[in-house]
Amino acid sequence: MGGKVRALGKHFIVEYYGCAPKLISYRDTVESVLLQAARIAKANIVKYDFHNFAPSGVSGMIIISESHFSIHTWPQYRYAAVDIFTCSETVNEQAAIDYMGRSFKAKKVDVSELERGVLSVINQKNNKAGSLDKEINNYR
Amino acid sequence: MGGKVRALGKHFIVEYYGCAPKLISYRDTVESVLLQAARIAKANIVKYDFHNFAPSGVSGMIIISESHFSIHTWPQYRYAAVDIFTCSETVNEQAAIDYMGRSFKAKKVDVSELERGVLSVINQKNNKAGSLDKEINNYR
Repeated sequence: MGGKVRALGKHFIVEYYGCAPKLISYRDTVESVLLQAARIAKANIVKYDFHNFAPSGVSGMIIISESHFSIHTWPQYRYAAVDIFTCSETVNEQAAIDYMGRSFKAKKVDVSELERGVLSVINQKNNKAGSLDKEINNYR
Repeated sequence: MGGKVRALGKHFIVEYYGCAPKLISYRDTVESVLLQAARIAKANIVKYDFHNFAPSGVSGMIIISESHFSIHTWPQYRYAAVDIFTCSETVNEQAAIDYMGRSFKAKKVDVSELERGVLSVINQKNNKAGSLDKEINNYR
């Protein structure tokens, strides 16, 4: 992106395959790993909640000042789906992604990056005589 | 997908552009719309939380039995980012997407669909002498 902001947010879609089932089965472990990942990324945690499905499998979310972390695990498939959505350049998502991969002992990690809130579309849809241009230029 | 399950989950990335700012500024409105959208989709709400940033802008997440709904709003850009992640064919995400678009008076709605937890990768990474094949074939 070369330093030029093209979107309000970056959204990392992270697929952890071949995880150790016991490490993604229960709320305590998964919550602890996701919270630590958010801290490692230097995200500001606002609130969070997790849910343990029966007999195993966890869903959880962390709202951060910069957007969110979420996780859903399927221990029977050794798979965990993580999202990191951030609107700040200060969040170190790579450190968080690496930490979670190590913590779950994932054999394969696939990461895709999406742009959210593309500024050219926002400009096109909202702009009345350039009123938003200045605001957008001041965004960072 | 022709009825054949290729992935554990479907993830809809929804971009609402040109929204009415007052409708995406405050927690009460945004929370009410997102919860109603989840109900319209026939998702099973497990837990949820929302946060109002100062002076305006909202982040919120709903854990559903089938995965999650999330939202982040930027009223100053008339933009809201919504995710619907579901692992069930019974969730009617389109009804939810349409309802939120109407509720926020969005001028443009962009929807992308991602597959999460691709079964061919899961098989490849986990399979020891076909042990997971039967389990995966029984998934639906």
